[in-house]
Amino acid sequence: MANPVLPSSGVLSPLGLDAVRLSPGFWGDRMALNREVTIAHCQEWEEKEGWIGNFRGERPRRGREFSDSEIYKLLEAMAWADHPALPALAEIVAQAQEGDGYLNTRWTGSRYTDFEWGHELYCYGHLIQAGVARLRTHGEDRLTEVAIRAADHVCRRFMDGTQTCGHPVIEMALVELYRATGTERYLEMARRFVERRGLPALGDIPFGRGYFQDDVPVRQAQVFRGHVVRALYLASGVVDVAVETGDQELLKAVESQWERTVARRTHLTGGMGSRHIDESYGDDYELPPDRAYNETCASIASVMLSHRLLLATGDVRYADLVERTLYNMLATGVALDGRSFFYANPLQVRVPAVPLNGVNHAAEGGLRSPWFDVSCCPNNIARTMASLPAYVAAAAGDGILVHHFTPSEIRHERLAVRVETGYPWTGSVSVRVLEDGEGRIGLRVPAWASDATLAHVPVSSPDAPLPDGPVIRPVGPGYAYVDGPWRAGDEIRLELPMRARWTYPDRRIDALRGSAAVERGPLVYCAESVADEPPLGDLTARVDPPVEHEVDGAVELEVAASLGAGANGGWPYGEAGAHGGGADVGLRLVPYHRWGNRGPATMRVWLPI
Amino acid sequence: MANPVLPSSGVLSPLGLDAVRLSPGFWGDRMALNREVTIAHCQEWEEKEGWIGNFRGERPRRGREFSDSEIYKLLEAMAWADHPALPALAEIVAQAQEGDGYLNTRWTGSRYTDFEWGHELYCYGHLIQAGVARLRTHGEDRLTEVAIRAADHVCRRFMDGTQTCGHPVIEMALVELYRATGTERYLEMARRFVERRGLPALGDIPFGRGYFQDDVPVRQAQVFRGHVVRALYLASGVVDVAVETGDQELLKAVESQWERTVARRTHLTGGMGSRHIDESYGDDYELPPDRAYNETCASIASVMLSHRLLLATGDVRYADLVERTLYNMLATGVALDGRSFFYANPLQVRVPAVPLNGVNHAAEGGLRSPWFDVSCCPNNIARTMASLPAYVAAAAGDGILVHHFTPSEIRHERLAVRVETGYPWTGSVSVRVLEDGEGRIGLRVPAWASDATLAHVPVSSPDAPLPDGPVIRPVGPGYAYVDGPWRAGDEIRLELPMRARWTYPDRRIDALRGSAAVERGPLVYCAESVADEPPLGDLTARVDPPVEHEVDGAVELEVAASLGAGANGGWPYGEAGAHGGGADVGLRLVPYHRWGNRGPATMRVWLPI
Repeated sequence: MANPVLPSSGVLSPLGLDAVRLSPGFWGDRMALNREVTIAHCQEWEEKEGWIGNFRGERPRRGREFSDSEIYKLLEAMAWADHPALPALAEIVAQAQEGDGYLNTRWTGSRYTDFEWGHELYCYGHLIQAGVARLRTHGEDRLTEVAIRAADHVCRRFMDGTQTCGHPVIEMALVELYRATGTERYLEMARRFVERRGLPALGDIPFGRGYFQDDVPVRQAQVFRGHVVRALYLASGVVDVAVETGDQELLKAVESQWERTVARRTHLTGGMGSRHIDESYGDDYELPPDRAYNETCASIASVMLSHRLLLATGDVRYADLVERTLYNMLATGVALDGRSFFYANPLQVRVPAVPLNGVNHAAEGGLRSPWFDVSCCPNNIARTMASLPAYVAAAAGDGILVHHFTPSEIRHERLAVRVETGYPWTGSVSVRVLEDGEGRIGLRVPAWASDATLAHVPVSSPDAPLPDGPVIRPVGPGYAYVDGPWRAGDEIRLELPMRARWTYPDRRIDALRGSAAVERGPLVYCAESVADEPPLGDLTARVDPPVEHEVDGAVELEVAASLGAGANGGWPYGEAGAHGGGADVGLRLVPYHRWGNRGPATMRVWLPI
Repeated sequence: MANPVLPSSGVLSPLGLDAVRLSPGFWGDRMALNREVTIAHCQEWEEKEGWIGNFRGERPRRGREFSDSEIYKLLEAMAWADHPALPALAEIVAQAQEGDGYLNTRWTGSRYTDFEWGHELYCYGHLIQAGVARLRTHGEDRLTEVAIRAADHVCRRFMDGTQTCGHPVIEMALVELYRATGTERYLEMARRFVERRGLPALGDIPFGRGYFQDDVPVRQAQVFRGHVVRALYLASGVVDVAVETGDQELLKAVESQWERTVARRTHLTGGMGSRHIDESYGDDYELPPDRAYNETCASIASVMLSHRLLLATGDVRYADLVERTLYNMLATGVALDGRSFFYANPLQVRVPAVPLNGVNHAAEGGLRSPWFDVSCCPNNIARTMASLPAYVAAAAGDGILVHHFTPSEIRHERLAVRVETGYPWTGSVSVRVLEDGEGRIGLRVPAWASDATLAHVPVSSPDAPLPDGPVIRPVGPGYAYVDGPWRAGDEIRLELPMRARWTYPDRRIDALRGSAAVERGPLVYCAESVADEPPLGDLTARVDPPVEHEVDGAVELEVAASLGAGANGGWPYGEAGAHGGGADVGLRLVPYHRWGNRGPATMRVWLPI
C-alpha cells in the first residue's frame, strides 16, 4: 500500500496512492507541478549548495548540521512521485554510509557528541521515511537497504540508555518502518524514545527544555509548546506508538494537547507558531497576525498529526483542520510557479519586499524565495505534495469516507468512484460510481457548511426508472452517508454553501480585537495591496456581504472599506479621537493561498471593522 | 562639571552632579539604593562570572565577547557615585592593557578580525565613557589614563580606512572625551565613524545591515530601525558630532528620525523595540504589548539621545519623552530591592513565572532576575541611576529649567533653589529660593497636564508685605517661567492635575485595537494579578473614572471590570458571539514600574474595553 501512514489498527484505514488518483483540479494540478518542477528545483539547489556534494565527500563540508535531511526529504518526494532521479541520488547517499550503518556528513568522526543540536537521529528519521516510501511504492532497493541499515544501527546504539534527539522525527519513522517490515525492535526503539523524553533526556538550553519538548513527559503535557515542528513531529510519533502498542492513555494525552492547541494556539489559516525567535508556539491566545511565524513545515507537521488522529479515532474534526491547513498553508507555501516558497506565513504584512537583484531571500513582503539557508520547507512541500492522495479519503470497513473534495478516482474493495468538483471555488461535489459494487460512501461535510444538501441519484434504467426526481436531504457538519449496493452510474451530489462569510476572533485573542476576516468555503481571504497602494494600514472595512468576482478561474471578493486614519500627532496615544472619515473604496480580497504572486505587496487577513 | 554630556554649544546647557543634588524622594531614594546596593551587586556578579578575572588573565576566558564592557559600565557608575571600589577595579583593568593601548580580553591575539560581532570598539566606547566620568568627577588617575591610551590607539588604528564597529557607542564616547580634554582628533575620529556607516562599512549578516544601521548613511535614514540600543547609541553620537561640528543638516536628520520613531515605533511606556529575535524596532505601528521587547538598555539609550536633543534644541518634547521613559522604563528595570532586573519590558504578560530554585533567569512573568548571561541592563541601570541628577534640570543663560520634579537642590550662577514635591504621587511642586539671586526659573509643564497652575509667592517682609495673596495663573504644556530677581524664601508653586486618565491608541496600532490604558501624571498603570487570580485574559474594563487608593506611599487605582470570556468552543474563530456577561470586579491597577515586586504574576497595561 503506497501510503505514508499505515496503522495496524484504528477506526479508519488509510487509502494510499494506489487507491486514490488525483485528476486535473486544485490539488491534481499542484501535485503535477510538484512532480514536474519542484522536485527538480530542489535537487538543483541541493547540488548547487553543496549539500549533495557532502555525501560525495567534497570538502569543506557545506550547509547546516541538518542539511543531510533535506536530501532525504527530497528522496521521499521522489519515492512517492516514482521520480526517475531517485536511484542515482540514493546511490550517492549510500556511498557515505559507514560500515556499522552510521550515516551523517556533518558528524562523521565526532558521532553523537551533541544530542541537543546535532540532529543525527533527526536525519535518520527522514532517511527512514524515504526508505519506507520506497519500500511501499517500489520495493527493496539501494535506498531501502541504506535506511534499514541506519535503523538497525540506531537500535543497537540507543536501545539501552537515556538518550534521544533534540529534534523528533525518528519516532514516527521507526514505527512506520516496523509497519512496513514487521521488525518489532523498531517499534520498541520508538516507544523508548517517546518515554525517555521529558524525564529529561537532554541538556538544558537557553530557549529552555520546552523548546524540544523535554520539559515534561509527553503523558503529562497539557498543550503543544516550544518549537512547533518538533512538537508536532513528536506528537505524530507518539500517536503511532500509542496505536501500535494499544496505549489508549497515551493517545488521549495527545488528543487533549491537540484540543487545547487548536482552541488557543492556532491561527485562522491553520498555521501554528506565534514566535520568530525560537519558531515556537506562543502562550494561549498569543496569536499576532503580523508576527505569526506559521512555518510552512509546521503546517505539514500539523497535517501529519491530524491525519494520524483521524485514522485512530475517526473524529471528523481532525479532517476539518487538515482541510483548513492544506488550503491555507500548504497551498500558500509554494508559489504558482512551483519554484519559490514562503518559510513563515504571517497573516499581516505591513511593508512590501525590497528584493535584492530580483531575489528576496527573506521571503517576506509578498515575494517568495527560491531557497533558504535552512531549506526544510521546499523539500517538505515536495514530499507532501507527492503523497497528497493519501490524505484525500479513508476506508471504514468496506466503505469509504471522502475527506477532501478534488477531482479524483477512489477505489476500495468493491467500490470505485470518480469525484468531480470545482471545489473550493464551487460547492458542488459529484461522486459517481464507476462499477457495480457495495459499501457505504461517506462524504465529509465541513464544520463551516451549515446548510449543505445531499442528493442520491441512482442511475436510471429500464427496470428501475427514476421516481419524481432524486431525493435531496439536508446534511449537517460531520459525515453524510449513503449506503450501497451501487450500480455503475449512480451518483451522489453534495452541495456545500459557498457564501463568503465574516469570521470573528475569540475575544481573548488580544491581537485581533476589533477585526474580522472573510472566509469562503475552506478558504481564508486576505486583502493584498501591490506596493501598498491602497495603504492597508489605514483601512476600516464594512461588514457587508462580500461581492464575488471570478478571476483566472478563482473567486475573488470585494468588500466596502474606508481609507484614512485621521491625523497622527507626534505621539500615538491620547484621548479617544474621531476617526478621519476617509474615502470609500472597494477592497479586493484574494484567497490567502494566492497572495504573493503579483510582486512586492502588503497583505492583511484580519480587517479592522 | 560632573556631567555625562557637556556640549560646547546648544540652546540649553546641562547641569551636572555638582549643580543638582537629589534629596530623599522618588529618584533620590533610587539613586541611594543604587549606590548602596546595585553597584556592589554588579561587582559581585562580575567577579563570580569571571568577567573581572578575564582582566587578570584567568583562563579559560569566561563570558560573551563583549563582557569587558560590563566592567566599564560599572566603572562609570562607580565614577559618578564616587564609589570607593573604583581604584582597585580600575587597576585590574589597567593591567590588561597592551603597550599600544589595545585592550580587550576576548580578542587579544586576534585583534580586529570581526567588526560585525567583535564589539572591540564598543568596549572602548564604554571604557572611554568611564574615563570621562572619572575625569569630570575626580580628575586624572589610572582609569582616565587607560581610557585615553585606548582612545589614542583607536585614532591611530582607525583614522584612515573604512572600518567601524557593529555596535555603536564609540562615537559619543570619543566626542565626550574631546569635550573633556580638548583633543580634536577624538572628535574627528567620531565624525569619521559616523560618516562611514551605511556606505556600507560592515559585512552583511543574516539579520540584514539594518540591524547595525549600516543599510543607509545616517543622513539619509528616515527612522530608527534595527537593533534598538545600537540605533540609539549611534544617534546619540551623531547628535554629539553634529553639535560640535555645527552640522545642522545632521542634527535635523536625527530629529526627524526621532519624530517618526516616537510617533510610530514607541510603546506607551516610552519603551522601544517590538521584536525579540533581533532586539529590534518593528515596522511602523507594529507595537504588540505582549511581545514588546523594550529592552531596559534601549530605554537608557533613548534617555541619552533625547537629553542630547533637548540640550541642542531646547524643545520640551524631548524632556517629555525622557520623563515618560524614566518613570515607566528605568524605574521598572530594577526591583525595589536594587538587586534584580528586567531585561525585556513587555506591556502584557499572560503566564506567571515558574522560578527554578527561586531564580527566574528569563526575568519574565513578574519576577526579575539577579543577573543575565548578557548583563548589560544591570550595569547600564547602575551608571544611569548614578548620574541621574544630570537629567533633572538644565541651564538657559543665567536661568534654570527644571525638567523633572523630585526633591532636590539646584544651583546655577546666582540661583539656588530647593524643590520639594511628592511627585509623581501628588502634583504639587514647590520651588523655594534659598538665597537672594537672579535668573529666570522655568518649570516644565508636561504634555499631559492640561490645567496646571503656577503661583509665585514672594517671601513676605516688613517692607513688601504680600498683597491679597499669591497670584495664581493657568499654565499650559511647555515651560512656565517666573523671572527674578529673587529673595531667599521666595517660592514658586506648580500644581499639576493628577487625575487618572484613560488613554487610547492610534487606530493604526493593530495590536491595541479595542483597548485603553490608564495613566496618571507621568505614570502608566497596569493590572497586575498575582498567580493570575483574577485571570487577566478574561476581563473587560469599564471606562469610568478610576478610584484612587494610597498604598505604601504610592497611588494605586481601581477600575470596574467584568470577568468572563464566554464559552470557547474547540475553534476560536466564528460568528460574532455574545460575550459571556461575567462577574463584575474591582480591578486594581498599580504603577507599571511597581509591577513584578509581589511574586509570579500576570500583567496588562492595555485593557480590553
